[in-house]
Amino acid sequence: MESHQNHIIKIGVVGLGYWGPNLLRNFSQLEGCEVAYGCDIKKDVFRKLAVQYPSTKFTVSYEDILQDDTVQAVAIATPLSTHYELAKTALERGKHVLLEKPMASSVVQCQELIDLAESKGLILMIDHTFVYTGAVKKIKELMQELGDIYYFDSERINFGLIQHDASVLWDLAAHDFSILRFLFGDVRPKAVFAQGTRHLSSHGEEMAHVTLEMESGIVAHVHASWLSPLKIRKILIGGSRKMILYDDLEPSEKVKVYDKGISLNLQNITPFNPLYRVGDIVIPKLDTTEALSVETQHFIDCIRSGAEPQTPGREGLEVVRMLEACDQSMKEGKKVLLSS
Amino acid sequence: MESHQNHIIKIGVVGLGYWGPNLLRNFSQLEGCEVAYGCDIKKDVFRKLAVQYPSTKFTVSYEDILQDDTVQAVAIATPLSTHYELAKTALERGKHVLLEKPMASSVVQCQELIDLAESKGLILMIDHTFVYTGAVKKIKELMQELGDIYYFDSERINFGLIQHDASVLWDLAAHDFSILRFLFGDVRPKAVFAQGTRHLSSHGEEMAHVTLEMESGIVAHVHASWLSPLKIRKILIGGSRKMILYDDLEPSEKVKVYDKGISLNLQNITPFNPLYRVGDIVIPKLDTTEALSVETQHFIDCIRSGAEPQTPGREGLEVVRMLEACDQSMKEGKKVLLSS
Amino acid sequence: MESHQNHIIKIGVVGLGYWGPNLLRNFSQLEGCEVAYGCDIKKDVFRKLAVQYPSTKFTVSYEDILQDDTVQAVAIATPLSTHYELAKTALERGKHVLLEKPMASSVVQCQELIDLAESKGLILMIDHTFVYTGAVKKIKELMQELGDIYYFDSERINFGLIQHDASVLWDLAAHDFSILRFLFGDVRPKAVFAQGTRHLSSHGEEMAHVTLEMESGIVAHVHASWLSPLKIRKILIGGSRKMILYDDLEPSEKVKVYDKGISLNLQNITPFNPLYRVGDIVIPKLDTTEALSVETQHFIDCIRSGAEPQTPGREGLEVVRMLEACDQSMKEGKKVLLSS
Amino acid sequence: MESHQNHIIKIGVVGLGYWGPNLLRNFSQLEGCEVAYGCDIKKDVFRKLAVQYPSTKFTVSYEDILQDDTVQAVAIATPLSTHYELAKTALERGKHVLLEKPMASSVVQCQELIDLAESKGLILMIDHTFVYTGAVKKIKELMQELGDIYYFDSERINFGLIQHDASVLWDLAAHDFSILRFLFGDVRPKAVFAQGTRHLSSHGEEMAHVTLEMESGIVAHVHASWLSPLKIRKILIGGSRKMILYDDLEPSEKVKVYDKGISLNLQNITPFNPLYRVGDIVIPKLDTTEALSVETQHFIDCIRSGAEPQTPGREGLEVVRMLEACDQSMKEGKKVLLSS
Repeated sequence: MESHQNHIIKIGVVGLGYWGPNLLRNFSQLEGCEVAYGCDIKKDVFRKLAVQYPSTKFTVSYEDILQDDTVQAVAIATPLSTHYELAKTALERGKHVLLEKPMASSVVQCQELIDLAESKGLILMIDHTFVYTGAVKKIKELMQELGDIYYFDSERINFGLIQHDASVLWDLAAHDFSILRFLFGDVRPKAVFAQGTRHLSSHGEEMAHVTLEMESGIVAHVHASWLSPLKIRKILIGGSRKMILYDDLEPSEKVKVYDKGISLNLQNITPFNPLYRVGDIVIPKLDTTEALSVETQHFIDCIRSGAEPQTPGREGLEVVRMLEACDQSMKEGKKVLLSS
Repeated sequence: MESHQNHIIKIGVVGLGYWGPNLLRNFSQLEGCEVAYGCDIKKDVFRKLAVQYPSTKFTVSYEDILQDDTVQAVAIATPLSTHYELAKTALERGKHVLLEKPMASSVVQCQELIDLAESKGLILMIDHTFVYTGAVKKIKELMQELGDIYYFDSERINFGLIQHDASVLWDLAAHDFSILRFLFGDVRPKAVFAQGTRHLSSHGEEMAHVTLEMESGIVAHVHASWLSPLKIRKILIGGSRKMILYDDLEPSEKVKVYDKGISLNLQNITPFNPLYRVGDIVIPKLDTTEALSVETQHFIDCIRSGAEPQTPGREGLEVVRMLEACDQSMKEGKKVLLSS
Repeated sequence: MESHQNHIIKIGVVGLGYWGPNLLRNFSQLEGCEVAYGCDIKKDVFRKLAVQYPSTKFTVSYEDILQDDTVQAVAIATPLSTHYELAKTALERGKHVLLEKPMASSVVQCQELIDLAESKGLILMIDHTFVYTGAVKKIKELMQELGDIYYFDSERINFGLIQHDASVLWDLAAHDFSILRFLFGDVRPKAVFAQGTRHLSSHGEEMAHVTLEMESGIVAHVHASWLSPLKIRKILIGGSRKMILYDDLEPSEKVKVYDKGISLNLQNITPFNPLYRVGDIVIPKLDTTEALSVETQHFIDCIRSGAEPQTPGREGLEVVRMLEACDQSMKEGKKVLLSS
Repeated sequence: MESHQNHIIKIGVVGLGYWGPNLLRNFSQLEGCEVAYGCDIKKDVFRKLAVQYPSTKFTVSYEDILQDDTVQAVAIATPLSTHYELAKTALERGKHVLLEKPMASSVVQCQELIDLAESKGLILMIDHTFVYTGAVKKIKELMQELGDIYYFDSERINFGLIQHDASVLWDLAAHDFSILRFLFGDVRPKAVFAQGTRHLSSHGEEMAHVTLEMESGIVAHVHASWLSPLKIRKILIGGSRKMILYDDLEPSEKVKVYDKGISLNLQNITPFNPLYRVGDIVIPKLDTTEALSVETQHFIDCIRSGAEPQTPGREGLEVVRMLEACDQSMKEGKKVLLSS
């Protein structure tokens, strides 16, 4: 990797639909990085982007990027069903890969990509964006103050973009699963139960509830929906000493820390003498740097240093494992046990 | 019943902890009704109440009420574990009964009470208070405008009163189950899955998630918790034509009706052309009469007329059936099927 | 006063409309205090109260109270126009007086009452309730952390009870003026400007804006209205180091302290580098005791000890002085200067 | 104007600080329009913009634009103190002008620009953006349903960008004055009172309250501040039949219409029978097109057709007249009367 350190890293951004332009913008703004190619199968998105990024070459041919030896990396933000093929080909051709979440359509595909990247000595990083936000990083810092953790409860609902090749869980709950893993560490749920329904599309659920039984009695729950008139982006984390509310829609007060310890003297609890004492609430100042700016820089840094990214392929695989378990649970109508 | 119409109906209120004083207050304010007795095993609550209700006799002896032939009815607001015994005895002694929710500790007990009331020709009404609120009655009116129903989603969480003989579901979800039945009619869920945890008490869950699979693809979900620093009382009901948000904590805007129809032309949905059109939102004016005032009046009216109450024993039984199914699901760790 | 210490203090509550029953309830609950009389010119309120307070004598005759030598004090919650006469008579007959805000209809009347109480050695306390709330007491504690004070800005609006003998300022802004004096100390504004309008009644403004120029460049502003569909009870206090938001409608997060210091290096301020740094926000735990409970106890304590109350007649007078200045400003259409 | 209809209109955007880039972006996206020049005295903003707008020429020389005969119009978004000179020169050189609010530093300057534009037959349009929003246009439609208007009350506060050549009123209240004129028509206030303070800067107030006495008893009030930790953008308009809340920070529910008629039968108003009846609340669907997109298109359309813009120079002048009256009121410490 040594030799790259003084060079500009050239990159190709593949998939220019909803998320790709954000990758394009962020990589373009980084020092020591150049977006050499933008690629999509729909030509009509090029016109506007070409005006904004005159030094980027726009193409419908992925092969154009792959065969250009000066391009070291690709960032893939295409529909889920194409992740595996596109990433595999890029790795085979020696390119580092930043891959949109969810990583791929199955654990098997994820494992293959991980093995391939490792054998080639290439960076394979998954775009779990929330892990790079000031809010989630602050919550991570606060976790040890919470005491015994009781629950993790996420609600991620709104009128959403129904996708053609992914259900609401693969789209939205993937965020929660990556946040959960970042906060609680590399721990697999013991059991997964999911319940979802589809009303409008033929291919995947538009709304679902997932219950994850974690070690030591923690229950994580995720409610994801594309069919809610109310937009909610809210995670509650409860502990014996403190509790956290993370409301991502709050413009400047996203994280609230409740110092509401719970007294254990149950004998004394009566309707006129309830169980809780309420302490102060603190709304900490957060780093407001755009997460994708931090994340794209981190990808470039990892390419230069050879270090493992904070969200490596292994993280992507574990999230996909949870999503697969959800699908299995919905199909079988029962809880699915995961071995650790 | 004829003979009662011109008489004052005398009533005894049993259980003067958290809810009983509200029954006492409301029955005392009704025309044609007199609270002859207040009863609790804890004598120390009498002093204050005796000052406020000088014409009510306060006693620790339930028998005092039962043997008084001028008392026609009892309203029972004691802990759950005593409901069955107290109601049974009252019915056997010829008293009409208003029974706090949940009706009893098991379906078997509920059925026994129903049969007993029927054989004696007595009113057995369950105190499903929400059914008598202006908000829930307005939502009932609006149900047929919603189109195909997609979901019913309730969140009922806060720092709560941990109870000694009931779990959070028997305490809080009982409300949602009674609302659900009122809105959707006499339809039993096909399957119930519940997941709950207990961290502080030895006898029952303090937080739980319940998924109910209803007929025709509707999924109902209830999240109940005594361990949330944030207080939420919110039900979302989604339909193909309209959606409803019921936020019980809003002082004057409890019900919001979203005229957000969902277009079905999925081909045209893209990130830049999403699926929904947004219409007006209406916040209807609600009847703000206290629910318990309406409900206590209704109980008295039913005693006089002999009519079946809106929330008869059968409603209480069906709610308990759902609660039992939740407990079974949590015990067995799997979905429980209910026959219709 | 010595001799009273071991006796029950007997009190009469005069005026049983909106606020009087709260005084009745709170005095009745105090140890060492007995509400001997309730008095109102409208007999029809007695029936309900008589049931709740069987040991209180209800009467339409104020004289009944005055001539009873065992009654030491009266609490007056009648319409404003009667305050002066009722308080004066009570003081002349040797009774201590707790007087609803605003104290009287003019500064002259207030001064007369103060002089009378002093000459008789009687307690004259004004019912400036907010001064006794946990929220306002907490804000008082925090004032010295704010740095240089820049402003005090209050909005107190809703659909209100239009009163027959008081304008919206005498009704609502009286609260703000008493809070302002409690927080900033015994400082008279240098100038007052008020602008108000009346649309529905013939006797007083239903909405008004008041600007008070305080010493050292602080400007206080109060917006009071009975004609707003939105209910707001919000005071913002800005300082160079911290700022406070007091939202009285928040059920459990009434006071928010913003640690948003303002950097003074104006050269560096640009649209892309704005002036502020944002620190943490803290929502302190508050004492949630009912203010009127604290206040009625304080009145009794002052009667026993002879100590001056926290809100003596002098406070009432200064609030009335500000209200008079507002009225004068509205009448003359210009700023009114007050001598200090 | 005929001859222009089939040509591309070339435009120069002058001032590329905070607002200018938005003009650049919107004009660039219009059909039949080309941004030929971008101009600013700070060269360092060019680099980034040049990448995004490769066909625009960036220059520090205003003269470059003026002498280019193919440029028909300039859009000026520079600091207030330069508006008059830049607009005057452009008009003299035959260019149409879109001028950022506030139009100029004095009524005299505004009148000169208006006369100049008229004598040259050129379009002079003022960038009163809010007038072009879906929210304000919807409110305009609703005005006649309100009945008699009682008040217009605006709060526009936050931690703001302290400007070097404008006070908070010239910056923020200018928006309210333009909205007020759009809603109420071409009516000048009879009297203006303003009270403001400066704590940090030497040149202008950072916070102020303005009261405008309109015809027929309507009072308009504007609270503007750069020193509030809380961000508020809220206008309340009260009428005898309906009231409107416009909260510009609400992402999708900006306008709320309260059908809260006020009953006039004052005799019956008591604390237990208050004055208002509450009807439904409606949150109408709004046009969500970006205001600046509508506005830039309108400017181009006016150039082509020769029609008078919705916000012509005369509107800019009347807003500046109100701002001048505020400054005079603050200087003299009294109400300023305006002749109609």
